[in-house]
Amino acid sequence: MATNKKLWGGRFSQNTDSLMEIFSESVSYDWRLYHHDIQGSIAHARMLSAVGVLTHDEFHSIEVGLREIEAQIDAGEFKWRTDLEDVHMNIESALTEKIGIAGKKLHTGRSRNDQIATDVRLFLREKIDEIADYTGQLQMALIDYAKQQAHTIMPGMTHTQSAQPVTFGHHLLAWNEMLQRDYERLMDCRKRVNICPLGSAALAGTSYPIDRQMTAHELNFSEPTHNSLDAVSDRDFVMEFNAVASIMMVHLSRFAEELVLWSSEGFNFVDIGDQFSTGSSIMPQKKNPDMAELTRGKCGRVIGDLVAILTQMKAQPLAYNRDMQEDKEPLFDAVDTLLLCLQVFVKMVPGMIIKPQNMRLAAEKGFATATDLADYLVRKNVAFRDAHEIVGKIVAYALEHAVQLQEIELAKLKQFGEMIEEDVYAILTLEGSVAARNHIGGTAPSQVEIAANHALARINARV
Amino acid sequence: MATNKKLWGGRFSQNTDSLMEIFSESVSYDWRLYHHDIQGSIAHARMLSAVGVLTHDEFHSIEVGLREIEAQIDAGEFKWRTDLEDVHMNIESALTEKIGIAGKKLHTGRSRNDQIATDVRLFLREKIDEIADYTGQLQMALIDYAKQQAHTIMPGMTHTQSAQPVTFGHHLLAWNEMLQRDYERLMDCRKRVNICPLGSAALAGTSYPIDRQMTAHELNFSEPTHNSLDAVSDRDFVMEFNAVASIMMVHLSRFAEELVLWSSEGFNFVDIGDQFSTGSSIMPQKKNPDMAELTRGKCGRVIGDLVAILTQMKAQPLAYNRDMQEDKEPLFDAVDTLLLCLQVFVKMVPGMIIKPQNMRLAAEKGFATATDLADYLVRKNVAFRDAHEIVGKIVAYALEHAVQLQEIELAKLKQFGEMIEEDVYAILTLEGSVAARNHIGGTAPSQVEIAANHALARINARV
Amino acid sequence: MATNKKLWGGRFSQNTDSLMEIFSESVSYDWRLYHHDIQGSIAHARMLSAVGVLTHDEFHSIEVGLREIEAQIDAGEFKWRTDLEDVHMNIESALTEKIGIAGKKLHTGRSRNDQIATDVRLFLREKIDEIADYTGQLQMALIDYAKQQAHTIMPGMTHTQSAQPVTFGHHLLAWNEMLQRDYERLMDCRKRVNICPLGSAALAGTSYPIDRQMTAHELNFSEPTHNSLDAVSDRDFVMEFNAVASIMMVHLSRFAEELVLWSSEGFNFVDIGDQFSTGSSIMPQKKNPDMAELTRGKCGRVIGDLVAILTQMKAQPLAYNRDMQEDKEPLFDAVDTLLLCLQVFVKMVPGMIIKPQNMRLAAEKGFATATDLADYLVRKNVAFRDAHEIVGKIVAYALEHAVQLQEIELAKLKQFGEMIEEDVYAILTLEGSVAARNHIGGTAPSQVEIAANHALARINARV
Amino acid sequence: MATNKKLWGGRFSQNTDSLMEIFSESVSYDWRLYHHDIQGSIAHARMLSAVGVLTHDEFHSIEVGLREIEAQIDAGEFKWRTDLEDVHMNIESALTEKIGIAGKKLHTGRSRNDQIATDVRLFLREKIDEIADYTGQLQMALIDYAKQQAHTIMPGMTHTQSAQPVTFGHHLLAWNEMLQRDYERLMDCRKRVNICPLGSAALAGTSYPIDRQMTAHELNFSEPTHNSLDAVSDRDFVMEFNAVASIMMVHLSRFAEELVLWSSEGFNFVDIGDQFSTGSSIMPQKKNPDMAELTRGKCGRVIGDLVAILTQMKAQPLAYNRDMQEDKEPLFDAVDTLLLCLQVFVKMVPGMIIKPQNMRLAAEKGFATATDLADYLVRKNVAFRDAHEIVGKIVAYALEHAVQLQEIELAKLKQFGEMIEEDVYAILTLEGSVAARNHIGGTAPSQVEIAANHALARINARV
Repeated sequence: MATNKKLWGGRFSQNTDSLMEIFSESVSYDWRLYHHDIQGSIAHARMLSAVGVLTHDEFHSIEVGLREIEAQIDAGEFKWRTDLEDVHMNIESALTEKIGIAGKKLHTGRSRNDQIATDVRLFLREKIDEIADYTGQLQMALIDYAKQQAHTIMPGMTHTQSAQPVTFGHHLLAWNEMLQRDYERLMDCRKRVNICPLGSAALAGTSYPIDRQMTAHELNFSEPTHNSLDAVSDRDFVMEFNAVASIMMVHLSRFAEELVLWSSEGFNFVDIGDQFSTGSSIMPQKKNPDMAELTRGKCGRVIGDLVAILTQMKAQPLAYNRDMQEDKEPLFDAVDTLLLCLQVFVKMVPGMIIKPQNMRLAAEKGFATATDLADYLVRKNVAFRDAHEIVGKIVAYALEHAVQLQEIELAKLKQFGEMIEEDVYAILTLEGSVAARNHIGGTAPSQVEIAANHALARINARV
Repeated sequence: MATNKKLWGGRFSQNTDSLMEIFSESVSYDWRLYHHDIQGSIAHARMLSAVGVLTHDEFHSIEVGLREIEAQIDAGEFKWRTDLEDVHMNIESALTEKIGIAGKKLHTGRSRNDQIATDVRLFLREKIDEIADYTGQLQMALIDYAKQQAHTIMPGMTHTQSAQPVTFGHHLLAWNEMLQRDYERLMDCRKRVNICPLGSAALAGTSYPIDRQMTAHELNFSEPTHNSLDAVSDRDFVMEFNAVASIMMVHLSRFAEELVLWSSEGFNFVDIGDQFSTGSSIMPQKKNPDMAELTRGKCGRVIGDLVAILTQMKAQPLAYNRDMQEDKEPLFDAVDTLLLCLQVFVKMVPGMIIKPQNMRLAAEKGFATATDLADYLVRKNVAFRDAHEIVGKIVAYALEHAVQLQEIELAKLKQFGEMIEEDVYAILTLEGSVAARNHIGGTAPSQVEIAANHALARINARV
Repeated sequence: MATNKKLWGGRFSQNTDSLMEIFSESVSYDWRLYHHDIQGSIAHARMLSAVGVLTHDEFHSIEVGLREIEAQIDAGEFKWRTDLEDVHMNIESALTEKIGIAGKKLHTGRSRNDQIATDVRLFLREKIDEIADYTGQLQMALIDYAKQQAHTIMPGMTHTQSAQPVTFGHHLLAWNEMLQRDYERLMDCRKRVNICPLGSAALAGTSYPIDRQMTAHELNFSEPTHNSLDAVSDRDFVMEFNAVASIMMVHLSRFAEELVLWSSEGFNFVDIGDQFSTGSSIMPQKKNPDMAELTRGKCGRVIGDLVAILTQMKAQPLAYNRDMQEDKEPLFDAVDTLLLCLQVFVKMVPGMIIKPQNMRLAAEKGFATATDLADYLVRKNVAFRDAHEIVGKIVAYALEHAVQLQEIELAKLKQFGEMIEEDVYAILTLEGSVAARNHIGGTAPSQVEIAANHALARINARV
Repeated sequence: MATNKKLWGGRFSQNTDSLMEIFSESVSYDWRLYHHDIQGSIAHARMLSAVGVLTHDEFHSIEVGLREIEAQIDAGEFKWRTDLEDVHMNIESALTEKIGIAGKKLHTGRSRNDQIATDVRLFLREKIDEIADYTGQLQMALIDYAKQQAHTIMPGMTHTQSAQPVTFGHHLLAWNEMLQRDYERLMDCRKRVNICPLGSAALAGTSYPIDRQMTAHELNFSEPTHNSLDAVSDRDFVMEFNAVASIMMVHLSRFAEELVLWSSEGFNFVDIGDQFSTGSSIMPQKKNPDMAELTRGKCGRVIGDLVAILTQMKAQPLAYNRDMQEDKEPLFDAVDTLLLCLQVFVKMVPGMIIKPQNMRLAAEKGFATATDLADYLVRKNVAFRDAHEIVGKIVAYALEHAVQLQEIELAKLKQFGEMIEEDVYAILTLEGSVAARNHIGGTAPSQVEIAANHALARINARV
């Protein structure tokens, strides 16, 4: 059994209550930072040895000891102890057991306050890179698909109602745009993550002649932090990342919502594939778009993670307070959830089978070319507002007689606007409608191809 | 290795993607519902046998089989399989393996949709009762302490500034009032949790001649739900519970904030005790109120859990959608966090050592009896608003000369208000001030005793 | 111009910065509490006169003066001054101007801290009653509609996919169940709102011989609060109401989501009516379900209001802090938004035109009676799990051959399960399917009628 | 009276319900976008004229007409009509009334969907610049102050407990670091705001030969958006801004919390000044840090605004839905709240009077140099972990005997660690402690000066 004696227990006369131990331990979740913790400790020790606080031998035995511990953890052979509170104390304690007195010197000139900030930054930097990578993969999949579908026509919707015909490729590139902004936000966030707090110690810096530039450089950080009080009480990187992740999950939830709609009997535009669907325990005919629904649900979860960290940080006086320990689970959860969703989308998108004939059929209904008709009138010198009114009346007539616009005879059309001529039927086609929107950002197939190439170029330009 | 064949897989031609399996499984967290799942299954099977859908022998073998599985799980000997998705399918599959054909009949007349709703309601009902119990214990501890401290004077604060003297007992009972409302909200929530959805099946009810009253009664629910579509898509009980838990955590966070303040060097009103404090890895002198700080942090977490479930449920069409699977982790987290905090407070409160002399000293500063002086002037026939102005000027004078009110000579006081007489000094005492507030809800020691007894009576009247 | 002299300014030597005045004033939004403020002041003054702190003449002139001010405000003739900060000071100042010295006595034995808590409770009690009334009206409209539609068949959906046939009346009653719980939560919340904090004064009670039972009774509160510190720092009623409102908005957002889906071309089950739809500035054919979409959007807003108040209250030490002034806008916004949404639904529901033939058509597709087929097999002694598997295979066959279940020949069906007989075709009808679900909460028309009557009885039993 | 005839009403046979009009109008709050709306309309019209869709005369009369309307609105002489729904329709309708047929042509080739996205982006870009400007001003005030206070010693705290001595200048620069990151986030957000959606029309682009580069350039946007579907359904800029604003408010709330603490009697480190404090209606002695408390409260409000927009956007299918109309109030509220708080801080900081003697006194208590003592032992060749333990025991001894560390005799100190020598007393001084932390980011006065200059240089380098 653990003796319950804490490494910080010198001034204490009574032991920690066992319930308090359960309440305050963090090793049950921060153990996963062990790689980063060890990486940070080795950089710190190397620096201490460079400035003469540790001998070279001490550093060497620390490095070897830590590497052995890392291997043990990797192999699942390390025994984590909650009475040792956290990942830092568990590893330091194991090190001292292993190498003796030198282990007790590792914590010179640092504190758990700057240590945990360093660990989380290293962890998050790595995870941002992973997320950025999957984001790029998903973008590539969308762009590829968009190129194939540059000519496929579907009903573009507003208010979940048919609005104007668009190309499916154009729709896929809309998703790509969202992800592009997500990528940029990730990179902006990464700049602020990639700064080294090590050496800030508890809150005021340390009296040892440390070389913070060296540690920052060792750990591939862009620079050391500029203020020790701020460095140990700053959790902006968690708040900012969770905000970026929330916006990204909002995007995936929108994508998911459309998959749910499109795979419903009412629309029937897409088949997600058996591999990403599930059935029912009671209804034998069911094939449900669970992947998409779970993504919607997980969006709520990540927004909850953001609220958690913002609410935790609100109104905390400087510098470190224990409230901050509660930053890790909302961060880990947001990271894991986002990564998993991205991985699923990356795999699911290329396997998605679309049904172009159903898309086209739907586009033919719903008077999707009514705006083209109004634009036609404008070209015949009707003011847009009047053209809108005329077409509105034609639509009312069509609804009453249950016909589509192109099915109304010219004579009848002329009753609404005498400037309407035979050439009107050409502009009422779906192909004509999409082809006409031929400008930057427009839905014309040729624009989709340009946009896809531009999107690709942006990705290829990433470092 | 699992064959990846699902119990619902009849119509599927391709296997579930392995990533999708990780993405959609819930058994890694819903396994903890196994007691309630088995309890619900036995009640369901008993009812099926009562109405003749199962034979008595089939029911008997199901009950025995499920009890054996329960014992296996209790003993940690059950192998949970993520390819079987959830707690329900894991147990059903094990049952069929154990008892054969009868196991395959258990799912007759129900669906996972009503099953999970039943499981979570059973779980939550049990947890509400536990939480209510700890709430009562914490209230008892506060009331006991309040009785002891009915005469202890401290500075009552508004805006974290000394306002008027109060008794510490009165302050403790303020916390008790919050918990009393929490208890009442828990009980109101419990009424709406305690209703039985079983028999709603997938969404529409079932074609078997089930007896829903019987199942509800077997499981000690107050009644069956009244609409099957609603019953499987309702997560009000999660939203309401998480709201109740959030308000409760806000209360504990306020309590915690005061402990942090009071154990700071600036106030030094209380010593939380070594058992509930922790030290620093670098600063040997530290003894930090971590318990209180973690409680504040955990409040943010539970608010995050509430946001998660609200956001998930927003705008879901009826009936069941897979988004709802994401309700469990925010619920479990809120339940566990709240319970743990309550347990810590229950243990910590009686061990809290207060420092009455420091409280008194602080009350003596800060002109805490200035309102009493204004009230004194009112009794001498000055309108309150004028009295307030006069005392404001006396305070300004006292500040300038760095004296307390009772240290100003009568002659000087008379310069501000000539109606001030020798008897003013009596009302400027702390004891006089608190004793004067002698009405329902007032801080007078006699009122604190009355209030403590009333609070006790309310608790004792609980069923 | 205002002199910038505050009623509390006795001890201050410098004026408030003008920016601070803008920053801290609340009269721009709390003016709407004037009825409740005056109502509270009259009750307070009547009590002061009853206990001898005011003469009867003083009370009389206060009451007359306040009634005159109320009439002035009603008539839009009152000049609100932000330099007087809030509704309380504006009214008190006007009163003193009007009636002289007696006006200055009104604030005896109370503080703005208990005054605002009283005002908001009076306001909220009134608003809860209004909301409860509209909730009842909406329920009545749904129940009426449900009775008419007890026999209309539509596809019941899970995962936005056809699941089993249900009656539209059943679906309408599902919405009613949600509202019933909302009503109950409102009433539970009302109990905790309906308690009188007046007399708690700043935080400790008052030294005047006040009669708090009398004031509570005058204002129709059920009782006075039990602890003065708690009474002035409690905002549970705002948090709880905003939680109740959030859950209610989640319900309306789900209702709204279905209206959006059902009025899309894909489903085309319902026409919301021109009165509750809007058009497009550019696309002449559009008729959009804006009412439903705005309701979804407003749900996010009310959840935001809840987060605002929870986050504000988190970790505030007792007693009153100025943070609490920020409670009013989130409360007012939640109240107003919820009320407006309810009013719109009350008017919109009876005018909603459904398209039963489209509903039926949709129900006929999607193998909605597959579960009935499985149940049929169970009655032929197949274990449910095996029946599910058999029907799954039949569905796969039907999909491949693009037929509905009832279109498959008996000989073919027998290849999947030889126990299938001619009587199977009867159970594959929609009418047979819904009629079979004939138990409490089931979708059978007869159950819908029973449920509607039960729902009506619950409403009629309201006081 | 308005005729209730909508500009989009061609196809409608019934008028909008009057309640629906109240429910769906936005002009009561989006009127404030009129400058940006007119600015966008003029740019659009100029482009239409350049590409030949409008004649030059038509453009000229539109420009003149819009400028007149703008002047009317500026002068408060414009009559906003809710039956015209929004800022766009109000202005367009007034324009047509004023200039006739040309007015009806303005809406050619655009939709309200791209128009509102443009308006909000123009508005937000302007507000970000204002916020960035105040942020810079506040940073300058802090840096100035920090330079003055580079040598003032105060207790650096962790867990609201004395930890190590720091300089007040160092603390002020910690706040500056937070604001620096806020500034950077604002600029990153601005990049993504500053893109032009105009020309995306309803969702698909337009069939007119528009020149989107020209419009973007006219409005000083960096480029046009790349996908029309995305451009009208994107509200990332609102979500991202509200996230940035929330983090910023969290920072201000932390600053505020410290002001509340420091102006409490327990700490008494600072006097906020009469201009930024307020009094009590009942307690004549009160001077409350209301500015700081309101800032804390307003932080909750802005977090609520963020949750509102995230929850609204979650799971919306493309492209525009009316839910998005609800984006404006949370955005406006976040913008206004943040701006007002910044303005108050900018004015308040330079007037804040600190009390260095109280700060010093507090730093002398609480064993703030215990870490220095441990570091001293390390320099005497004790391993840090052992040094920590020794000092812990010395602190326990000091607590028991109610002495400070420097008051313990050398002989006694030697009992704990025999390597302790006379030179220990030098390192126990506050000046020695802060001076020793002499590295990048450390609290040493010389480092504070370097850091202040660096901070200043960063600001001066802003464009």
